[in-house]
Amino acid sequence: MGPGVQDPRARQPSGGRGHQPSGPQRRLLLVLPCPRGDADPGALPRAAAALLRGVRGRPGRLRTHHPRQGRHRPGGAGGVQRGLAENRARYCHERNLAVNPQGGNTGMVGGSVPVFDEIILSTALMNQVISFHGVSGILVCQAGCILEELSRYVEERDFIMPLDLGAKGSCHIGGNVATNAGGLRFLRYGSLHGTVLGLEVVLADGTVLNCLTSLRKDNTGYDLKQLFIGSEGTLGVITAVSILCPPKPRAVNVAFLGCPGFAEVLQTFSTCKGMLGEILSAFEFMDAECMQLVGHHLGLVSPVQESPFYVLIETSGSRAGHDAEKLSSFLEHVLDFGLVTDGTLATDQRRVKMLWALRERITEALSRDGCVYKYDISLPVERLYDLVSDLRARLGPQAKHVVGYGHLGDGNLHLNVTAEAFSASLLGALEPYVYEWTAGQQGSVSAEHGLGFKKKDVLSYSKPPAALQLMQQLKALLDPKGILNPYKTLPARA
Amino acid sequence: MGPGVQDPRARQPSGGRGHQPSGPQRRLLLVLPCPRGDADPGALPRAAAALLRGVRGRPGRLRTHHPRQGRHRPGGAGGVQRGLAENRARYCHERNLAVNPQGGNTGMVGGSVPVFDEIILSTALMNQVISFHGVSGILVCQAGCILEELSRYVEERDFIMPLDLGAKGSCHIGGNVATNAGGLRFLRYGSLHGTVLGLEVVLADGTVLNCLTSLRKDNTGYDLKQLFIGSEGTLGVITAVSILCPPKPRAVNVAFLGCPGFAEVLQTFSTCKGMLGEILSAFEFMDAECMQLVGHHLGLVSPVQESPFYVLIETSGSRAGHDAEKLSSFLEHVLDFGLVTDGTLATDQRRVKMLWALRERITEALSRDGCVYKYDISLPVERLYDLVSDLRARLGPQAKHVVGYGHLGDGNLHLNVTAEAFSASLLGALEPYVYEWTAGQQGSVSAEHGLGFKKKDVLSYSKPPAALQLMQQLKALLDPKGILNPYKTLPARA
Repeated sequence: MGPGVQDPRARQPSGGRGHQPSGPQRRLLLVLPCPRGDADPGALPRAAAALLRGVRGRPGRLRTHHPRQGRHRPGGAGGVQRGLAENRARYCHERNLAVNPQGGNTGMVGGSVPVFDEIILSTALMNQVISFHGVSGILVCQAGCILEELSRYVEERDFIMPLDLGAKGSCHIGGNVATNAGGLRFLRYGSLHGTVLGLEVVLADGTVLNCLTSLRKDNTGYDLKQLFIGSEGTLGVITAVSILCPPKPRAVNVAFLGCPGFAEVLQTFSTCKGMLGEILSAFEFMDAECMQLVGHHLGLVSPVQESPFYVLIETSGSRAGHDAEKLSSFLEHVLDFGLVTDGTLATDQRRVKMLWALRERITEALSRDGCVYKYDISLPVERLYDLVSDLRARLGPQAKHVVGYGHLGDGNLHLNVTAEAFSASLLGALEPYVYEWTAGQQGSVSAEHGLGFKKKDVLSYSKPPAALQLMQQLKALLDPKGILNPYKTLPARA
Repeated sequence: MGPGVQDPRARQPSGGRGHQPSGPQRRLLLVLPCPRGDADPGALPRAAAALLRGVRGRPGRLRTHHPRQGRHRPGGAGGVQRGLAENRARYCHERNLAVNPQGGNTGMVGGSVPVFDEIILSTALMNQVISFHGVSGILVCQAGCILEELSRYVEERDFIMPLDLGAKGSCHIGGNVATNAGGLRFLRYGSLHGTVLGLEVVLADGTVLNCLTSLRKDNTGYDLKQLFIGSEGTLGVITAVSILCPPKPRAVNVAFLGCPGFAEVLQTFSTCKGMLGEILSAFEFMDAECMQLVGHHLGLVSPVQESPFYVLIETSGSRAGHDAEKLSSFLEHVLDFGLVTDGTLATDQRRVKMLWALRERITEALSRDGCVYKYDISLPVERLYDLVSDLRARLGPQAKHVVGYGHLGDGNLHLNVTAEAFSASLLGALEPYVYEWTAGQQGSVSAEHGLGFKKKDVLSYSKPPAALQLMQQLKALLDPKGILNPYKTLPARA
């Protein structure tokens, strides 16, 4: 279900089956629709904003007459305030109050917004860099640091962050880790499960779990931090992160290519893995309908002749001359073999950004096209586009657009369907069809977005019952009262 | 405690405090010393070998009159036999029988050898490749596949395994994952927490947890496989692995350099990260005493003039000419600036192997030098060698040699002390001094070897009480009867 589609369950308290604290629990009937980014009080409905005023600006302690729904930011004026998060968690645990940890609130699946009467625990004031090691590139920082600011910080020191997202201007590193964010550098630098070296986490009962090591290797016991990476704040609240930053590449090049078919997109990918090897840092694709949408809604112009598919390839290397040579040999090869019909190359930063915009602004173009149904799917790469073609045929004129784009190098498809307005019949044609199709290919129904509130009930399409059972046991172990980000990630128990 | 040092507790059943099954438990007083590699029945003491005959060669079912100590290999003649592992685990669970999962039995800390009366569950017959995807490089195989055989398999298909170890000729991929093995490619391809994409695990009660996805991205619920990576068979038995293999580099070069001091080793590392960038695939170091040992015991000759430190740098890239150019500029720079006093370069495979042997055969030279006390430490890279110098001064003539070598690029020191024979006073001078020194630098007392049986009691030097408590809770959740690899990884509860 896309951000444009309102989940009717969010309006019915009885629909919330997950959070059943053992003590008394006051429910608030006012439910916020909370689409992306609007949990900031300024954008909240008036009634909710009035409630928020009770805690905003008084970070020193949680009021004993707490508001039933509120946003709380541990931290004084910029200070290191993990202890406050700890106090909050303990306070809430003792009183059976549900907590909604919130970073930049940029998630796609409603993982960072309250559903009923959870207290929002914002990490926004925990925004300090704790240390940076100039030889190893290991950054230790608080969870509320904004990704773009961290990027700037480490780039000044000749490193880069191992992840990059469209939402970098407002997402928090703690939220990135909590949701195991993928993004644009995944192909080169891999998963946060590999690049995050340590975490500090406040557990449900207020215990601080300090695993904030800044070592590349540590095999002393179970790697507990892994539990919290991607658990969407349902097992603990991440308060600080230690992460390995790669050296800043000295040369970045982008090639934007038109391909005559999806088979050629795949062959281009195989060829470039061989010929560009270690300098390949992104392999993205988009279909012709995506290009039409960014043209129509945003006025962007394709830099290459019209094609059924487009590919964006980025290289990042330590020697501009070598990278340019590799890239030219590669381009010559793919043009000679008819894998690519037209292409353009950018080496200066302005043009690199312009080419990236064609890919990065697809989401924005889609949101201007009407009601959007969004799916974030992992599939074996050779079947990646079949789902888009199948759906286009299945939906016919019911849909305005059915588009496919994404991180082809990671086997990650962003499938989006637009329509003039929300329609239950269109939704019925999409779900569970998309999930069943994906499950049929042993794919993942959530590649990089997580499950949050919107997708928690589709987990079983990608995980067997034994896995779900173990997840529920872990949740019960780490959060026996169910106060941490309730109604998220796991389906309610039967 | 090194392999050369016998742990007296292994001979006293009363010392085993970890495994306390809820049901009756028969203890066997015959305890095998089981140093590395000798759990194969042929090498076992005669009395134990006699016991093993009861199950060897009868893989179809576990005998109801099971031997109290035995080795069991699920699997028929080469077939896929995960179901048998499942049956074994269920059988043992019902009868409160302790199980010792065993792969190639090459670990350094006694994690793969039984302590009392555990039944050995060997993965040796689970040695089939299940699938390999030629575009994505994703390999799915059974846990008992030998690392070197997998390397050969994927290299024939133009990929490499993301890890490489000295023990590759006999270690199993399942054991590599269970111990979160580091090794020689860690610097470039990172941790198994990032490269392992899926696992199939048999839980303590025989439940099969199938998380054997072959997708690069999957954010559906908690990433359960991470629990088992590095848990040394104490939470479940890994029966199959899905792992991402990088493309095979087209050019591999090795430089072997002599450095005048450790400060210059560090500067050489920083310089090479900048100048070699994405083609750097290993940065290893060894001190002068290591070179003396490989010379004295193995007859290897240093290819460069005598120096206080030696560095081995490997590059792996997609274009030989480019790599050679980068490497020459780098060498010119470090020689000009006096960071390196002498160096040699190898591009052909024979000479590359010869240079690697100087580093890889240090362990072998040490084992010929007498009784070896081994430590595997992570430290902030700038303090890495201080521990070696400190110890040399502290031990004086008590030690024959105090040497330091290892994966400098990962901040991982292998610290080894040799003496003519085992001495309790030398051990007393080493421990807990080494662990306390490491803890004082927020280092790890086990970087890549794990804790196993030998080091389980030093966990607290690198992990706080809250972490230990959570580990014990996880163990109790996943293995309530304590039958999986008892006495390993976690210290006994107080």
